[in-house]
Amino acid sequence: MRRFGRNVILTAAVAMSLAGCATAQDAPPAPPSPFDAVDPFIGTAGKGHTFPGAVAPFGMVQLSPDTDHKLLREGYDWASGYRYDDPTIMGFSHTHFSGTGHSDLGDLLLAPISGEIRWDAGAADQPGSGYRSRYNKASEVAEPGYYAVSLTDSGVRAELTAGTRIGLHRYSFPRNAPARILLDFRPSIYDYPGKVQWSRIRVHPDGTITGFRETRGWAPGRQFYFAMRFSKPVVGYQLRDREENVPYRGFRQPGRAMDDRAQVEGRQLEAAFDFGQIAGPLLVQVAISSVDEAGAIRNLESEGGSFDFDGVRASTRASWEQALGAVEIEAEPEMRTSLYTALYHALIAPSVHGDVDGRWRGPDNAVHDADFTVHSTFSLWDTFRAEHPLLTLVQPDSRNADMINSLIAAQQVSPYGILPVWSFAGQETWTMIGYHAVPVIADAYLKGVQGIDGQAALNAMLASATYRPYGGLGDYMDLGYVPIDREPEAASKTVEYAYDDWTIARMAERLGRTDVQQQFDRRAGFWKNTFDGETGFVRARLADGSYRTPFDPTAINYGSDYTEGNAWQYSWFVPQDMAALVTAMGGDQATVAKLDAMFDYDNSGLDYSHAEDIAGLIGQYIHGNEPSHHSAYAYVFAGAPWRTQARLKQIMDSQYHSRPDGLAGNDDVGQTSAWLMFTAMGFYPVTPGSGQYVIGRPFTDRTTLNLPNGKRFVISTEGLSDGNPYVQSVTLNGQPLTRTWIGHAEIQAGGELHFVMGAEPNLIWGTTAPERPYAMSAYGQ
Amino acid sequence: MRRFGRNVILTAAVAMSLAGCATAQDAPPAPPSPFDAVDPFIGTAGKGHTFPGAVAPFGMVQLSPDTDHKLLREGYDWASGYRYDDPTIMGFSHTHFSGTGHSDLGDLLLAPISGEIRWDAGAADQPGSGYRSRYNKASEVAEPGYYAVSLTDSGVRAELTAGTRIGLHRYSFPRNAPARILLDFRPSIYDYPGKVQWSRIRVHPDGTITGFRETRGWAPGRQFYFAMRFSKPVVGYQLRDREENVPYRGFRQPGRAMDDRAQVEGRQLEAAFDFGQIAGPLLVQVAISSVDEAGAIRNLESEGGSFDFDGVRASTRASWEQALGAVEIEAEPEMRTSLYTALYHALIAPSVHGDVDGRWRGPDNAVHDADFTVHSTFSLWDTFRAEHPLLTLVQPDSRNADMINSLIAAQQVSPYGILPVWSFAGQETWTMIGYHAVPVIADAYLKGVQGIDGQAALNAMLASATYRPYGGLGDYMDLGYVPIDREPEAASKTVEYAYDDWTIARMAERLGRTDVQQQFDRRAGFWKNTFDGETGFVRARLADGSYRTPFDPTAINYGSDYTEGNAWQYSWFVPQDMAALVTAMGGDQATVAKLDAMFDYDNSGLDYSHAEDIAGLIGQYIHGNEPSHHSAYAYVFAGAPWRTQARLKQIMDSQYHSRPDGLAGNDDVGQTSAWLMFTAMGFYPVTPGSGQYVIGRPFTDRTTLNLPNGKRFVISTEGLSDGNPYVQSVTLNGQPLTRTWIGHAEIQAGGELHFVMGAEPNLIWGTTAPERPYAMSAYGQ
Repeated sequence: MRRFGRNVILTAAVAMSLAGCATAQDAPPAPPSPFDAVDPFIGTAGKGHTFPGAVAPFGMVQLSPDTDHKLLREGYDWASGYRYDDPTIMGFSHTHFSGTGHSDLGDLLLAPISGEIRWDAGAADQPGSGYRSRYNKASEVAEPGYYAVSLTDSGVRAELTAGTRIGLHRYSFPRNAPARILLDFRPSIYDYPGKVQWSRIRVHPDGTITGFRETRGWAPGRQFYFAMRFSKPVVGYQLRDREENVPYRGFRQPGRAMDDRAQVEGRQLEAAFDFGQIAGPLLVQVAISSVDEAGAIRNLESEGGSFDFDGVRASTRASWEQALGAVEIEAEPEMRTSLYTALYHALIAPSVHGDVDGRWRGPDNAVHDADFTVHSTFSLWDTFRAEHPLLTLVQPDSRNADMINSLIAAQQVSPYGILPVWSFAGQETWTMIGYHAVPVIADAYLKGVQGIDGQAALNAMLASATYRPYGGLGDYMDLGYVPIDREPEAASKTVEYAYDDWTIARMAERLGRTDVQQQFDRRAGFWKNTFDGETGFVRARLADGSYRTPFDPTAINYGSDYTEGNAWQYSWFVPQDMAALVTAMGGDQATVAKLDAMFDYDNSGLDYSHAEDIAGLIGQYIHGNEPSHHSAYAYVFAGAPWRTQARLKQIMDSQYHSRPDGLAGNDDVGQTSAWLMFTAMGFYPVTPGSGQYVIGRPFTDRTTLNLPNGKRFVISTEGLSDGNPYVQSVTLNGQPLTRTWIGHAEIQAGGELHFVMGAEPNLIWGTTAPERPYAMSAYGQ
Repeated sequence: MRRFGRNVILTAAVAMSLAGCATAQDAPPAPPSPFDAVDPFIGTAGKGHTFPGAVAPFGMVQLSPDTDHKLLREGYDWASGYRYDDPTIMGFSHTHFSGTGHSDLGDLLLAPISGEIRWDAGAADQPGSGYRSRYNKASEVAEPGYYAVSLTDSGVRAELTAGTRIGLHRYSFPRNAPARILLDFRPSIYDYPGKVQWSRIRVHPDGTITGFRETRGWAPGRQFYFAMRFSKPVVGYQLRDREENVPYRGFRQPGRAMDDRAQVEGRQLEAAFDFGQIAGPLLVQVAISSVDEAGAIRNLESEGGSFDFDGVRASTRASWEQALGAVEIEAEPEMRTSLYTALYHALIAPSVHGDVDGRWRGPDNAVHDADFTVHSTFSLWDTFRAEHPLLTLVQPDSRNADMINSLIAAQQVSPYGILPVWSFAGQETWTMIGYHAVPVIADAYLKGVQGIDGQAALNAMLASATYRPYGGLGDYMDLGYVPIDREPEAASKTVEYAYDDWTIARMAERLGRTDVQQQFDRRAGFWKNTFDGETGFVRARLADGSYRTPFDPTAINYGSDYTEGNAWQYSWFVPQDMAALVTAMGGDQATVAKLDAMFDYDNSGLDYSHAEDIAGLIGQYIHGNEPSHHSAYAYVFAGAPWRTQARLKQIMDSQYHSRPDGLAGNDDVGQTSAWLMFTAMGFYPVTPGSGQYVIGRPFTDRTTLNLPNGKRFVISTEGLSDGNPYVQSVTLNGQPLTRTWIGHAEIQAGGELHFVMGAEPNLIWGTTAPERPYAMSAYGQ
């Protein structure tokens, strides 16, 4: 449940729910609505890296409090700008990542000031040393699209809400104090000296403030534009360039004092706006753009024409209610809170990137036009696994097609001619490995998402899969694997490329491109070239064909044979042919034994603290990072679904909690949340692009998917309890389901998947080969 | 005459002229054509700051050799990137200022390499230490639109030509050596560490290279884009980011070696392109843009579709022949060379700034559309005096209107809402003082240049003249002068604002805006508020009304009471009411005595070496800088035109020579050249906006102006010789002209102004008050 404080007017739903608690002991209280069940604070402590601020579904603006903007090298825990336990708030900035393991953003920090203007944030442990303020923890409120807090140093009640491309601030200042807004354009998340390459703040005659800054952070040369308006007239303002030792400022700048200048340019800019003593709150509306200041003004006017804070909040609330309503969940309260929060976190990104007029900035850093809504923030190495497959079930085709078309459009204007790897604000960061836009596109297209040009999609996929300079891909094509003496993380790259290639083959098959299908079905088998039958591990090879020695399957290092992991995690990454992997592992029994060895590994002697993103360990299974996400389901392919069921309970119990530190690892822009959503429903997309969901076990009493096509698909459970972790039987629409997967088409048709749970494993159900998923040889159902 | 060397194929005209020299001793040789009379080397030594490279009339590209890119603090003598006496050439870059006193540009340096690639330029005194090359001085050829040189270290013959928005290089490599082009995107003119804020080099699949760099130089945050194509296929290329200690390069960049990457981004970029051993020369065509890379490609294709070097050279030659043909000059060879070179230098800028598709980048750093050709590089404090008035006589209305409309368009999108002060690439540099776009616009509009919206022009002028934060303008409006205790260079600012205001009054008068006329005619008299009758000098006052003491009329310091000058030079700046100034000075005799005192001042004890732009001293008259440019004509207003005639000969003899060090001071984007053109013709626009040209004395036997309206205006001279410096009589169209000025309308009507020269001064002609110019009270004729 979301937090609320004394100063908050309770919403009707919460008030009713509390009233229920107090008065009707025997009738269980009605559960909170999906909207009220969301707790945006989950993940804001620990390693979740989520933010608690205001955001609309897939909103371009993520308006959220920043407790600190740490330097790049020490900022890992502040990747979202906010730590739940931090004692002060610097201010409120307009862009944030949800759950990333690297970071940036925190653009356009505003701080309400009621006293003297301090131009630096000051130290958190020295109250009053700067403009940052302590705050009343109990006063913090967070719900989808709304955040509020009482700042104790300034005495300001701050409320935030957001539309798709706008953020609104409502600041209630203390009586008899001047109302001021400080704009600090210098800091950002994962900061470092010189990160701001150029910036500009401009005061227009009509009172609109616009600006620009170009940063060199995670994305190179990223351009950020904004437009801002206040609900009260500015009675005075100051513009500051805080940089010292500027080599050339111009011989004779007008207005040396700068305070009456219309614009300031530089690398270390700030501005302060004074409103005098005002009656009632001050509203600030801000729109952002990646295109230009005129685009930001248009974005502002398209949504923020008036200063109707409550109206925007209500409208965004309605958007969230509709989006969260895609799934109706009956479950224990904590599980239900975790799940609706997970769904909320899964619906934040990929976020809108294009302006309301269709213009957007591409990976070539040029401006383009689109006739759809361009999205960005693609954390594809994470999200191809479950986040994007989830979106095909809970979001309309138009949204999914917008995302796919954004990927294809980016490829078409990319300087490299390839699909995004990890991009935000339209810019490529080259983070992580693989070309996982490929399975995202294939999965959506093959599921029948409308509005995608299949040929353009296949062309884009082929361009990515054949761009030789990228990550050892030339050698991969020539040798059948990436050689570790020429390219780091070669083992991971080889197996991930092979899976991506398999999805190209499936696209080509659908489009009747037999030549391409054959070529890429062959490449889909390249994982074998880096699988060492002797040790039973995926293992890096040299260009001469030999395996690299010494070999330590527990070693985790950047630039090693694997990507953020080791042989234990990566040896399961053959989602396109798990049956063949089981064979390579030595058959069912050996596979089950190896999976057990992974989960039960005694890691007490190992120290992975040097490697970021290694959290949530269960033996050598690492739930806090993505390579492990499908591994618990691997038992199913070895004919031991009851082992999957047991492991899922083990993971669920240890890795998810409905509290700020309730995520074991980075949420990774929804992937960790999407895992939870799928797993709780009872199935998981081990092989996106196959159209199959592998059955695990449900964790809800009943989940209803209100599908984009209008149909309803129900997952119901009988006998679910902590003591009944095992699936006894499954029926689909009343008919026994003996196989351990269901097809996307079966879900889309609507109906009911029914589980009967029990205390003991069913050692027979789903154990024979024909009952297993078979991604390699067939698509869909 | 232009220089040429052994390796050059002589053009037919030159060959004929030489042939004439050799064979026909008694018949004087036909003078070279105007085109051939131009010597682009004039001004490339000494303080001229011109460049010798290839440029089309008002061309966006100025493709020229750079002998050195010095650092900001030591670069004054390298303001054009080239010093005639430097022993080496770094390479050839695409943007240059002609004759400025501050600098920037030198974008996109290309160097042809025939051996091993060296990635740094190396030291000029250590041959072979880098990619810079020694060159054969005798091999250097420069003519309008063409430059060539033989590089001795690389053995490459380099030829350059340029169209309006393109530059073409033709490199002839030695046989049996690899042909390579190095692109160094790091250096620029007036360099300093960190000047390149961001840059990008991209290799397109079709072989086109594009790129971008953003620099923080004279103009803040200037964006430069280019597109480049080669006439031979690239057989290999290398992209380099030379920056060290980059905080974040992206976790896993594709193609670590970078050599096969499609793009590189960063702050210290270089690229090398390899063509192998090729037959025949390599051609490189480059287009630039301030808008984006797509704009640069369009600019390239609009002019550079083929690799027809000779065709572009011939076409640009034709443009120059037409432009130079506006003036037919008969004079002594050296004077004729000086004059055609001056005309050439006057026709380089303001230069084309907008793309071929009409898009341009404004002072708001945003992209706008225009239905005319947007120009930039406005050195207005210099060029309002004579450069722009000259252009109204020698360029069509369309060109003049493009410039005026560029100024107005800039005002309309300016963050400050004001006209350019000193802008290039569309960006404001805030260099120098005044709002001298105002007299430029007024002069053109009042002369009847077609295609200017008078109301929009007046609005723009008013906006500039009432922008209080600019240079003490608020105080000027309130107090009637700029107080020196609140604003440096207050004396200069007051008198310059007052003149600019007078031109607004004249515009308002023409447009029937009596209220505005009255307001600004009043402001035109504000010069009196800073004129100290006791000392007879324009002198700075404090806000309390007192004059600042101590007062030293010979002091020259930055931030002093005057702008790049002192009381001696600035006390003559009342062009709008020279009659009143003469009165204030104490009458005719006192004025003449004071002018003589200025010219004859013994400056042997003074050291102005700390102040840039102080060159060309004759006593306290400083021809090398603009404040003095009209002063020799001041005698005319005191009834002593013969004194003007004597001083003009003194200036001409000492300040102009047809050799590389032939300009006494910065050419200042054509102003110093325009002074020469006017003065040689026999009159000078002391008061732009008045429509009057004050008569001095001619220095040519005959000059014919082929006016934009198709009429011809001839200035003919009788008895001109070194020993005959004085005007004896003047006739206009055969009628005696007793007044000492002619009107623009008289010139526009066509006709003949005839001078009779003699050894002794005519002490009667033009001496009475009615014969003097009277700018204050009337416009035009």
